[in-house]
Amino acid sequence: MKAKVHITLKPGVLDPQGKAIGRALASLGFSGVGEVRQGKLIELDLQADDAESARVEVRAMCDKLLANTVIETYTIDLEP
Amino acid sequence: MKAKVHITLKPGVLDPQGKAIGRALASLGFSGVGEVRQGKLIELDLQADDAESARVEVRAMCDKLLANTVIETYTIDLEP
Repeated sequence: MKAKVHITLKPGVLDPQGKAIGRALASLGFSGVGEVRQGKLIELDLQADDAESARVEVRAMCDKLLANTVIETYTIDLEP
Repeated sequence: MKAKVHITLKPGVLDPQGKAIGRALASLGFSGVGEVRQGKLIELDLQADDAESARVEVRAMCDKLLANTVIETYTIDLEP
């Protein structure tokens, strides 16, 4: 089973990396770009059999290691 | 319109960051985790009106700035 974890900064948390990307896009001539936010994408190969146990395990991984839940939120997509 | 760009390393490209995450997960007791790959997620607010022109613009942004197309691939998700 494959899990895709999207980790993004919570709304309101400053994102200097996203701001830098936005300014770079503007300097390249891309107008009409509003806010830019950068996050992380982590793809995991899991040996879990059913989706529910996989989701529980990935959620534990996020809370313990992958995400800083003080400033970040995460979403988990599972693919068989 | 919102665009989400997922940037991942092409298959076969070494991913030391993903390997480090995999080892850290194993050392925390998460067994059954196979390959781990880390990518980037970039969220953009766009002022484009129709999805097709937005997709063309975001693809140009990826090719010029956001992704290193020698070693990375990207997918674009658009939300109204």
